[in-house]
Parts: sequence; structure tokens; C-alpha cells
Amino acid sequence: MTSTDLSAPAPDRRIRRMPERQVTDQAALHALLDAELVGHLAATHYGGPIVVPMAYARAGDHLLLHGSTGGGFALRAAAERTPVAFAVTSLDGLVVARSLYDHSMNYRSAIVYGVLEAVEDEASALDLLTERLLPGRAREVRASTRKELAATRVLRLALDDVVMKARAGGPSESPDDGEDHSSWAGVVPLARTWGEPVASVLTPAGVPVPESVVALATTGAPS
Amino acid sequence: MTSTDLSAPAPDRRIRRMPERQVTDQAALHALLDAELVGHLAATHYGGPIVVPMAYARAGDHLLLHGSTGGGFALRAAAERTPVAFAVTSLDGLVVARSLYDHSMNYRSAIVYGVLEAVEDEASALDLLTERLLPGRAREVRASTRKELAATRVLRLALDDVVMKARAGGPSESPDDGEDHSSWAGVVPLARTWGEPVASVLTPAGVPVPESVVALATTGAPS
Repeated sequence: MTSTDLSAPAPDRRIRRMPERQVTDQAALHALLDAELVGHLAATHYGGPIVVPMAYARAGDHLLLHGSTGGGFALRAAAERTPVAFAVTSLDGLVVARSLYDHSMNYRSAIVYGVLEAVEDEASALDLLTERLLPGRAREVRASTRKELAATRVLRLALDDVVMKARAGGPSESPDDGEDHSSWAGVVPLARTWGEPVASVLTPAGVPVPESVVALATTGAPS
Repeated sequence: MTSTDLSAPAPDRRIRRMPERQVTDQAALHALLDAELVGHLAATHYGGPIVVPMAYARAGDHLLLHGSTGGGFALRAAAERTPVAFAVTSLDGLVVARSLYDHSMNYRSAIVYGVLEAVEDEASALDLLTERLLPGRAREVRASTRKELAATRVLRLALDDVVMKARAGGPSESPDDGEDHSSWAGVVPLARTWGEPVASVLTPAGVPVPESVVALATTGAPS
């Protein structure tokens, strides 16, 4: 696959509810995936559903998932080639209407369906994940040791079967069913921001904050 | 159930990876659930896993899930009493170490396992959900109509089988494997904040922002 065909999800993925919220723009998908840091991986495990948060990064037409948080079930799903679903969601704002019913949330959400695969070159995948999570950091620290790489598991998931939905803008209201049309309606945006870096007790007194961290705090929000 | 026994998850839920990160404090669980607005619901659907974001609110020892985003599969899972898993995650910070390997994220995550049930008194459940998402708003708008209530689905999930994990604090490093101990290590906190309310085109000129929205912006971050 050289591109993600969002216009033709597998037949059982069709959006039945609110189909007008389906997004078929690959740039919008990539923007969402590149802005968020953590997604939720779901699989069937011991006969029932399981879902856990996992850090990830997009590398072209794949997502790279970091194995440590997901723990055993992600590695097992990869080994057994059982299907998984991975959701990435950005909550963008609260939509305030003049009836409770028309309140809503602005969001962007992508669900990727597929099979996890082991990554062959884990050192490169780890570099890419790190570069995504904290750009420039890899150049500030020593190289990973062989032992560290051996303890690291990076899995990948192709962006072949993806459904994206989004809601943006103000509230929509039925034309006339009793709202007070003289009152306020609108959106309260929700943003995430990096706070001031906090030095660990490991840091000797007077040591400056590294460039990568300064840049992160300056560029601001991850989404 | 009058309380959630986090110390005794079902046998197949035991945390095998990083068991030191398991949280068994009910107050910490409730604090997480009461701070977040959206979780991820997973189930088995058409033979494979599916996961979607859903708004929720905690009501005592249950979570109330709003049906519209989750669409058909959540309603179907409730009707058929098939097991689901619901994850609520707060990403709290980026942990910066002096080796790539020791970088991490601070987070709190709860996974609730169970069966979704229809809520009998949907009007009350909807009020509770709204009060959680935008406190005070219900008193500012007209009551929901019978038609609106009929179109609303609220599902509930008992907090009986929950696994919570958390990581907090600075990086942990192996004592001596080549890090530059004269350099910086620490945490970059990640916070979510409500932005300035934006009036919709539906709002007549000069209408003030409602008290509920002012209060939301003032109290600040949902997590």
C-alpha cells in the first residue's frame, strides 16, 4: 500500500450512525495521527475484549506501537496474527447548545483495523518513536545498548483499513422546538499544553533544561 | 456492590507487566474517572475487535455511557449481554531520562470489564451526564422533550471488575550504564485546558456567555 484509501473501508466498517461525520481526507487522518501521542489498542484476549493505552508514532503508512505499556496481549496478538483495532482520538471542544439534547463534543477519531506485526529493525523504529515523542532527544543522549534494544518491542500496524470520524463547529439545533433563541450557543475549545519542565532529583543543581525539552515547551500543545 | 474491590481483579486480569504500577486505591480510581470526559469502549463485533470513543460520567459505582457516539455496536453488546472493556486514560506527562530506553510517560489508566446494561430512567441518567460534562447547564435550558428522550440511549457499566495502573514522578534509571549523569532528567507535565468560549452564528449579538460556560473556563482543566 502506498496510500490509505479512506473512501473504501471494509464492508463491516461502514459508519451506520452519523455517516456525515466520516472523514475521507488522508491529510486530515495523518494530521490527527501525528498530533496525538497515545491510542487505545483493542483485541480479543482470553475470550473477551481488552483495551489498553499505548504510545505510538506514524511512520508513513504504518503506525509503530511501543510494546511495553500494552504488555503481553499485544505481543501475543502479533505472534498469533489475531485481529486488533487501534483508536486514536482527539477531544477538541465542548459544544454548547440551547437544549440539552443538542449538546455535543467536537472531536476527531480514527480507528485502524488490522494485524500487528513485529518490526524487523527495532533500533530504527525506536529512534522514530522517540523522535516523534520528543524531537531532537535522541541526539542528546547515548545510543541504546544491545541489552536495551533486546528488551524493547515495537509492533507495527498498517493504515490499510481505517475509519475516521470528526465533528467540528458550533451546535446544530432543530429549527424550532422550544429553545430560547435569544440565549448563547457556541463551543468551548479544549487544548492540551505542555507545562513547565520539572527537574528530577537525579539532576545536579544548575544543569540547564535540554534543547529538546525547551523546544517542546515552546511549540506547545501536542494536539 | 457498594464499593469497588480493586485489590481482587478477576484471575485473567492480573497485571503481568509492570505490576508495581497497579493502583488499588478507590479514591484514585474515582478521581481519574471523574476528571476525564471520554473513554474507549471495546467489544467483539462481527467476529473481530472494535473500539470507539464514548462520553461517560461516573454515577456511584457505575459508569454511564452516552450511546450516540458508540453507535450500534454498544447497543447491540448491551442487548446481547456480550462482554465489553472500557478504558479511561489520562496522559499526565512526558518522562525525560538520560537514555532513550528510560524515557516514559506519566499516566493514569483504568480498564473496566463487564456487561453494558440499559438504563431504566434515561431522563435522570442524561441529567447526570450533562451535569458532569457541563455543571449547571441543565438549569439554563428548557427540559428535554419526550421525543428527544426517546432518541437518547444511556448505557451503564458496573465498576465491579476494574484494573487501574498509574505512573508518576521522574525517570528511573539503571544505576550505571553509561548515562551522562551531569545532564538533565525530569518530567514535562501535560495538561488540558478549556479555551475562550466561541459564540456560534446562532447567538444574537451581545448575548453574554452563560454562567455554566464561564464557570467551566474558570475552573480550568478537566484533567
